[in-house]
Amino acid sequence: MVVILKNNATDDQINGVISQLEKYGFQVNVSKGIQKTIIGAIGVKPDFDTRKIRILDGVSDVYRVTAPFKLASREFNEDNTVINIKGVEIGGDSVAIMAGPCSIESEDQIYRMAEIVAKSGAKILRGGAFKPRSSPYSFQGLGEEGLKYIKAAADEFGLLVITEVMQISQIETIYPYTDIFQVGARNMQNFALIKELGNVDKAIMLKRGLSATIEEWLMSAEYMLASGNKDIMLCERGIRTFETYTRNTFDLSAIPVVHKKSHLPVVADPSHATGIRDQVPPMARASIAAGADALMIEIHDDPANAFSDGPQALLPDTYLQLIEELKVIATAIGRKIN
Amino acid sequence: MVVILKNNATDDQINGVISQLEKYGFQVNVSKGIQKTIIGAIGVKPDFDTRKIRILDGVSDVYRVTAPFKLASREFNEDNTVINIKGVEIGGDSVAIMAGPCSIESEDQIYRMAEIVAKSGAKILRGGAFKPRSSPYSFQGLGEEGLKYIKAAADEFGLLVITEVMQISQIETIYPYTDIFQVGARNMQNFALIKELGNVDKAIMLKRGLSATIEEWLMSAEYMLASGNKDIMLCERGIRTFETYTRNTFDLSAIPVVHKKSHLPVVADPSHATGIRDQVPPMARASIAAGADALMIEIHDDPANAFSDGPQALLPDTYLQLIEELKVIATAIGRKIN
Amino acid sequence: MVVILKNNATDDQINGVISQLEKYGFQVNVSKGIQKTIIGAIGVKPDFDTRKIRILDGVSDVYRVTAPFKLASREFNEDNTVINIKGVEIGGDSVAIMAGPCSIESEDQIYRMAEIVAKSGAKILRGGAFKPRSSPYSFQGLGEEGLKYIKAAADEFGLLVITEVMQISQIETIYPYTDIFQVGARNMQNFALIKELGNVDKAIMLKRGLSATIEEWLMSAEYMLASGNKDIMLCERGIRTFETYTRNTFDLSAIPVVHKKSHLPVVADPSHATGIRDQVPPMARASIAAGADALMIEIHDDPANAFSDGPQALLPDTYLQLIEELKVIATAIGRKIN
Amino acid sequence: MVVILKNNATDDQINGVISQLEKYGFQVNVSKGIQKTIIGAIGVKPDFDTRKIRILDGVSDVYRVTAPFKLASREFNEDNTVINIKGVEIGGDSVAIMAGPCSIESEDQIYRMAEIVAKSGAKILRGGAFKPRSSPYSFQGLGEEGLKYIKAAADEFGLLVITEVMQISQIETIYPYTDIFQVGARNMQNFALIKELGNVDKAIMLKRGLSATIEEWLMSAEYMLASGNKDIMLCERGIRTFETYTRNTFDLSAIPVVHKKSHLPVVADPSHATGIRDQVPPMARASIAAGADALMIEIHDDPANAFSDGPQALLPDTYLQLIEELKVIATAIGRKIN
Repeated sequence: MVVILKNNATDDQINGVISQLEKYGFQVNVSKGIQKTIIGAIGVKPDFDTRKIRILDGVSDVYRVTAPFKLASREFNEDNTVINIKGVEIGGDSVAIMAGPCSIESEDQIYRMAEIVAKSGAKILRGGAFKPRSSPYSFQGLGEEGLKYIKAAADEFGLLVITEVMQISQIETIYPYTDIFQVGARNMQNFALIKELGNVDKAIMLKRGLSATIEEWLMSAEYMLASGNKDIMLCERGIRTFETYTRNTFDLSAIPVVHKKSHLPVVADPSHATGIRDQVPPMARASIAAGADALMIEIHDDPANAFSDGPQALLPDTYLQLIEELKVIATAIGRKIN
Repeated sequence: MVVILKNNATDDQINGVISQLEKYGFQVNVSKGIQKTIIGAIGVKPDFDTRKIRILDGVSDVYRVTAPFKLASREFNEDNTVINIKGVEIGGDSVAIMAGPCSIESEDQIYRMAEIVAKSGAKILRGGAFKPRSSPYSFQGLGEEGLKYIKAAADEFGLLVITEVMQISQIETIYPYTDIFQVGARNMQNFALIKELGNVDKAIMLKRGLSATIEEWLMSAEYMLASGNKDIMLCERGIRTFETYTRNTFDLSAIPVVHKKSHLPVVADPSHATGIRDQVPPMARASIAAGADALMIEIHDDPANAFSDGPQALLPDTYLQLIEELKVIATAIGRKIN
Repeated sequence: MVVILKNNATDDQINGVISQLEKYGFQVNVSKGIQKTIIGAIGVKPDFDTRKIRILDGVSDVYRVTAPFKLASREFNEDNTVINIKGVEIGGDSVAIMAGPCSIESEDQIYRMAEIVAKSGAKILRGGAFKPRSSPYSFQGLGEEGLKYIKAAADEFGLLVITEVMQISQIETIYPYTDIFQVGARNMQNFALIKELGNVDKAIMLKRGLSATIEEWLMSAEYMLASGNKDIMLCERGIRTFETYTRNTFDLSAIPVVHKKSHLPVVADPSHATGIRDQVPPMARASIAAGADALMIEIHDDPANAFSDGPQALLPDTYLQLIEELKVIATAIGRKIN
Repeated sequence: MVVILKNNATDDQINGVISQLEKYGFQVNVSKGIQKTIIGAIGVKPDFDTRKIRILDGVSDVYRVTAPFKLASREFNEDNTVINIKGVEIGGDSVAIMAGPCSIESEDQIYRMAEIVAKSGAKILRGGAFKPRSSPYSFQGLGEEGLKYIKAAADEFGLLVITEVMQISQIETIYPYTDIFQVGARNMQNFALIKELGNVDKAIMLKRGLSATIEEWLMSAEYMLASGNKDIMLCERGIRTFETYTRNTFDLSAIPVVHKKSHLPVVADPSHATGIRDQVPPMARASIAAGADALMIEIHDDPANAFSDGPQALLPDTYLQLIEELKVIATAIGRKIN
């Protein structure tokens, strides 16, 4: 923490600030310039409420100079985290593809989708069994029955499973069926849930909240890392801005920033970011080009009758063609899509 | 829903859109102008995904013309909802004051605070027993022990209790001790929690999410109204914008807008909105002047050693003086603070 | 400026940063903690591009610790700036009221409006002669003819004039007719214009840009102060956020923040902030309660036929009644509206 | 425009709205449902202030259903606009590259940069002679002298010139030296300037304002198209959001949206969007992948001593290598960089 004193701060005020900082346990270092006095305060845990210093007499400004996350930081771990799930890597040289329908709708539907996913060479099948819907009248998901369907379909085609967990009570139910737990954007700061997921021995994909800063996103990852789960990937899916022509603003510049600040892999989700089918391919291409470590794409073979989010699902043919284009882009930046 | 066709839409495309709308159960009304064809589609539930129409051939734009909330709307209920809890009204002529510490810290502390609250003439005591903290190392609240303390202190001084509920599992624990359940900003779209609170026979105060639109906020209230709980009040506590000199942007213009769109009472929380003590009084005054039905203010008699949010707590004397000013402002706009 | 080194920065990197800072003319002070090295760098002009240090090897973060504005800061001038124009004060104990139509439409119209303004006790008449319109087909203002009308009407009723200047070439034209030059939100960073206005010997009201931070707003004021014009007032008129139910988000919390950071008076403009007549009175009341030094309100006696912004204009009777309420609120906070 | 009446609107109110609409010149079409009455109003110019209807008794909501821009719309011109300047196309199959320093610093510097640009195969040289700086003490550009230097350098290497115009008075000065006039983000709604540029017979690149919606951006293009200049290209350079780890949020999703709504070509500027050198390459790659029609990149061979924006300039070698990668990505999406 760095404390900037007011130009006209008295010696009494400066000493008051110093003794208060020492009382809170900080190691203090004072630099007196001709005009400005600056106090460096080092050594207290990152969740210290800096406002406690900001309201003291004579203080002009306070800057926290240590990132509030530690285990998630690039400084803590200089090498990229590569998550390896049954031989499938996320965060390594290859860009992983996750694809599938928004919701698991039936045994048959998820089987057909798994077939397409396998055909594309992708290794991870997505599908929701518990759906967070803004209306109580909307389809709420097939629950455990759906989980059985997706697990069977994934096994048939040698795929991994990723599916969303919304509540602590669902962790145990979902555990046997999934390889990756997905935490949705609205739950990014559901601290009870993410703390619990920190104790699970399966990988987690943490979506960025609609208005979460990159720092808050990494803080939520820190929660899980601190609980012991090292297999955390982040997922950018669009943020809320003033723009209304797009559903969300897909923040692709977050990808190189996260890669600089953290060692954790970043997944990009152009389907939710854009919300409209014909914008998914350009944004999928841009995601790979921006350096995403994995891509999540929604597909459906009858989008008009999809139980949820049909308008953003790619048709199988469009999807298969897109994957071919993505492979060329991956090659251009020295990576590959297997 | 109103569907705008492209200027060059063919008759086949227009007929395709019409038949699709009818298939979804809409009653259709077509207006053909010289340049533009507009289709009015009426009669399907508000959670219909309008993107399903937007992606059809020939469609230029789609506008949802019914608010997605119904029970929360002013049209549904022209008269203001007045919540009456043991004789204390929220939403009537009087502006209710809720005050107390951020966290219940001890039996003695909450007793002292309750005394100040009662002295000011306020009728509702606030205090948190379960705290949603962004760091796992921070104070997490006294739990049920704290609830016993606040209930005893409130009873001693004839006050009501408001306290925050963070998880479904806490509802039963908190129930005997509180008069109003507070739902925090991060839980505004925790649909499982709010649906459950819709079944409780006590009042709810629903804080606005940090990046929630007014429409989403009213939708969350709708969830609870639909479950049968009519005693819902909303609480504005600041939204996230680009501005960094303030912690949040306190959206006071939301107050007259909610009053126009809805019959539910609105509480203003200048303590959390500003996050800094010396900005609380001007924003408290502005809240009353803008028409807030109630005010929530944090107080502490030793803020430097508060377990949480000390920098935004008013000292008792400042608080008591502020209440006197607020009474004059209330009078100026034809209301009163008792 | 404070420079935070990476935990693993080498001595060579640290020395490299130090010598670079010295080369740029900074006075350097190094604090080496066990984990972190922090460098305080003092003494170079505020517009130094801190990214030049941020990109050096071994640097983790850079914080500018001096506000980039100086003459506008509260530290530079502890006492409030009180602008006195022909005996009318802005920034003193009294809250000044500026009122009038959006556009000057005719000699008769501005005369009728001036009469209302005078009747309310207000001392400043507003009215636009040059209108910045987003469509070339909209009414562009009466130009110099309009200026003659407003000056005559103001003189008749003993009022001051405020009117908007949009281009450097208009300054000379407007000068004889106005007492205060208004700079619109879209011109807040039109540096050529504001630099020129710094040389004018009349007061300036600088509106906040739609997405301008408070810091940028004060920087634009700094431009004019640096050129020698001390009579600068700021005007909050709403910022752009994600909310769509309101036209802008009226940032009233900016008022106490500006009062803390700066000595300049702040005007509030609820008419443009809300854009809708029935939201103007509650927001006008809230502005006074939040501590605004002046209020700008649009009025019209035939809003349905107004040349511009009719929907946000108050009818004369509503306006006169509002002023009476505002007087009570002003009294409640120890100020007055004469 | 579509007008939604309140559920409880009386016949008198409905008739009042209809007659008012007719008075304003609209052709009216009424749809009465069981619950809702909807009025379609067609035929009046796009700048009609819809608030005039919104404030009428009985009206619930008003939707403008025609985009406010016409000449800029895809409906007006189904084929992409391809701007051809001396044989260099922007908006066609090839992706155009514009590169050069932020500021023209000397005859020698711009010559060296032009050499690099030509070597990369790019056809357009950028460089600023008039700089919009937020501080009056910063380098303000070489003015006409700089224009001579860039023109000579461009001619030497067979390149086109793009340079920024900030004021109407500069148009004439710049005209002989440039092929494309650049309008900066802060001038996007400087209507006087852009109207004037609509009369110029050279191409214009219009940067998106920091907080401008896509609609406002297209409206500003409309201004110039309406004045007769058809050679308008748009430039995305980042928008302002709540995120602070990035300088701006680079809104790449705007590219496919603009391509859908408009026929105008879109340039992407990753240098200004990110503001930091090491984020430029990933965002440049993502821009091409997202479908940008041209790319603007800042380069410098001594960034530490650049007169402006050195930290975001690529070194020549990095730039030349990036262009090679971009060529592969362009090929992957069926385009080319020559």
